[in-house]
Amino acid sequence: MSPWGAPARAEGTDRLEMFTDGVIAIVVTLLVLELHVPETTHDVAEALWAIVPKLASLTVSFVTIAIYWVNHHHFYARVRYTDWRLLWLNNHFLFWLALIPFTTALVGDHIEDSLAVAVYAGDLMLTGLAFVVMGQYVLFWSALGDESIPMAVRRHERARGYAGVVAYLAAMCLAFVWLPGALVIIAGIPVTYFVPHLLVGEERA
Amino acid sequence: MSPWGAPARAEGTDRLEMFTDGVIAIVVTLLVLELHVPETTHDVAEALWAIVPKLASLTVSFVTIAIYWVNHHHFYARVRYTDWRLLWLNNHFLFWLALIPFTTALVGDHIEDSLAVAVYAGDLMLTGLAFVVMGQYVLFWSALGDESIPMAVRRHERARGYAGVVAYLAAMCLAFVWLPGALVIIAGIPVTYFVPHLLVGEERA
Amino acid sequence: MSPWGAPARAEGTDRLEMFTDGVIAIVVTLLVLELHVPETTHDVAEALWAIVPKLASLTVSFVTIAIYWVNHHHFYARVRYTDWRLLWLNNHFLFWLALIPFTTALVGDHIEDSLAVAVYAGDLMLTGLAFVVMGQYVLFWSALGDESIPMAVRRHERARGYAGVVAYLAAMCLAFVWLPGALVIIAGIPVTYFVPHLLVGEERA
Amino acid sequence: MSPWGAPARAEGTDRLEMFTDGVIAIVVTLLVLELHVPETTHDVAEALWAIVPKLASLTVSFVTIAIYWVNHHHFYARVRYTDWRLLWLNNHFLFWLALIPFTTALVGDHIEDSLAVAVYAGDLMLTGLAFVVMGQYVLFWSALGDESIPMAVRRHERARGYAGVVAYLAAMCLAFVWLPGALVIIAGIPVTYFVPHLLVGEERA
Repeated sequence: MSPWGAPARAEGTDRLEMFTDGVIAIVVTLLVLELHVPETTHDVAEALWAIVPKLASLTVSFVTIAIYWVNHHHFYARVRYTDWRLLWLNNHFLFWLALIPFTTALVGDHIEDSLAVAVYAGDLMLTGLAFVVMGQYVLFWSALGDESIPMAVRRHERARGYAGVVAYLAAMCLAFVWLPGALVIIAGIPVTYFVPHLLVGEERA
Repeated sequence: MSPWGAPARAEGTDRLEMFTDGVIAIVVTLLVLELHVPETTHDVAEALWAIVPKLASLTVSFVTIAIYWVNHHHFYARVRYTDWRLLWLNNHFLFWLALIPFTTALVGDHIEDSLAVAVYAGDLMLTGLAFVVMGQYVLFWSALGDESIPMAVRRHERARGYAGVVAYLAAMCLAFVWLPGALVIIAGIPVTYFVPHLLVGEERA
Repeated sequence: MSPWGAPARAEGTDRLEMFTDGVIAIVVTLLVLELHVPETTHDVAEALWAIVPKLASLTVSFVTIAIYWVNHHHFYARVRYTDWRLLWLNNHFLFWLALIPFTTALVGDHIEDSLAVAVYAGDLMLTGLAFVVMGQYVLFWSALGDESIPMAVRRHERARGYAGVVAYLAAMCLAFVWLPGALVIIAGIPVTYFVPHLLVGEERA
Repeated sequence: MSPWGAPARAEGTDRLEMFTDGVIAIVVTLLVLELHVPETTHDVAEALWAIVPKLASLTVSFVTIAIYWVNHHHFYARVRYTDWRLLWLNNHFLFWLALIPFTTALVGDHIEDSLAVAVYAGDLMLTGLAFVVMGQYVLFWSALGDESIPMAVRRHERARGYAGVVAYLAAMCLAFVWLPGALVIIAGIPVTYFVPHLLVGEERA
């Protein structure tokens, strides 16, 4: 169970990306498994109405995870090598990501409960933090990435990443004070990451 | 979480296809998870008889999704580049596709309920619409596709795609008026997409 | 939704194999989802004892599906082209394969019920038949395969395939007459496919 | 269903690795499916508190499986050929691995039950044993691996592998005598495999 002489740094990120793609594809699809209408229901309209909060949290989670997928690929297109630390930073990211179907179902069932919303925000915060730390490792603490990326771009990336983490932290705290505000922040964060990405791409074209 | 200098348009569609294949493989397999015979049943024949509607909706969904898989690959064989808009148009397509196991189980449990059938038809309509819009973006609104495809073929493609969307819309409305008719349309649409594809391939051989 | 000018026959089978691998990996893993010990059980030993039939059917299904994976790859290593018919013959194979977790759970819950065992044998028979027909299409009815395979080997392959289908059919009928015999046949078939494969490989080395 | 003339030994391990990656990605994600908070719960805090043992066993399983993924890839980077025996040794490894979501849920529900803990330790032991035997086949009993690996490294690998198996066996027995000790061993084993791997890599850099 050890690499017997495997180099500390390996070229290419294909296998890490394929494994990550597999996990993300499954997580995104499992979200839907939490949707259920009781088989014995007679009033389908009422049953569907009852799962609207679940459908809402599912949609937010789906979009959030899709953003991670898009960003993971953009990011790894600029990573040249892997080492055991990067593998584990990625596994750490996947751990919090894999919990999202659970926390999504929790908040879908208990949309009016502060703790449930805080746990959901907390999971999203930890997923984001894991992603940012992974990026920081590549951009600042190792020589695994594309060295041509300007330092200003790296700092900007890091700042944007931590902004999201802080926003989730704020939502987590706000959940105990003003629940609707927390929900608006959680639903709004993906939108802000969706748009800038767009602009950056556009400027470069 | 941004592409820091990634070009607005990237060559190749491998990663998009692999992620899509993963999601489709999981969605197709999850359909079966909705099949259950109670462990405590003593009359297996009766229990199996009771899930015949579920088995029927599962089969329609399986064939429909398999058709999307076949078409997605044929389509992307002619797409040369991706940009962020195409990634999101594909994610949008996958969102409605990922809901199919849920709407399939809903209609399987409530085959005689107009709303359940309309929701199923609606999900299939939105999946089709997302696929058609994605195709339209590649064929008419961007320069990502193979430029040698004749304009007449592009228009024919678009027309065929919207025909399916309109048929699902008709099934959705019909569900509230004449349920069996709606079910026949929903089960019949895959057949019409299965066959022409065949003929087109044949002519070119 | 059509191939607009895609050739009727495409080189390579990579995408078909990747999609199949995805479905098989998921089906094999979902088998375990059917195993459950009630959370409220106090006597774990008794609860585990109660799922022994489920564990047995799971093991038979796992080995059977693993054999299909091994054979699918050996087979497609000799297939050079795909056409729409082969895609659909493979999708047809995957349909019956995807039902195996359901029929496995059914027989695991109702090991002493003739109908449940017959349904399980029937699903395995249809999976086998779909595989054999797919092979027959490649080997006898199209020019998609490696043309250097001698006709005697092709005929032997076909005969071996149909032998398995007939054995499952026998198990299906026997289930209504002498249940233990049917179970022995179902558990024994994978063993016979496991071993010859071995011998053939050995002779050629 | 046979390789009709396929060589006994095939070059490359891509397909075996892809299938394994698929199964591992699914197993790791399914762990979370076992987490559930009842929809009708009113006290979310209490419900979350109740699933702490499940979350703990899930974390141990996630890390353990992630270690296998890392090691599987390091290992197969040094394997050059596959034969039918290696395919089946890998399938055997995947069988015990695929059971981990079940045994993880079992121990999560029954953290104070000796038998449940012993079954969990037993599954982890058999997964480890299957991995070690697969490694032994490549390193000592066949010519499929990289021949430049020194014999001392091979022996060290084998010894490390069996050490883990023996530790799980010890935990399995200890579960019936002193449960907390068994749990500490099970949670501690991944830590020991996490660290040495690191050191070996470091020395070589």
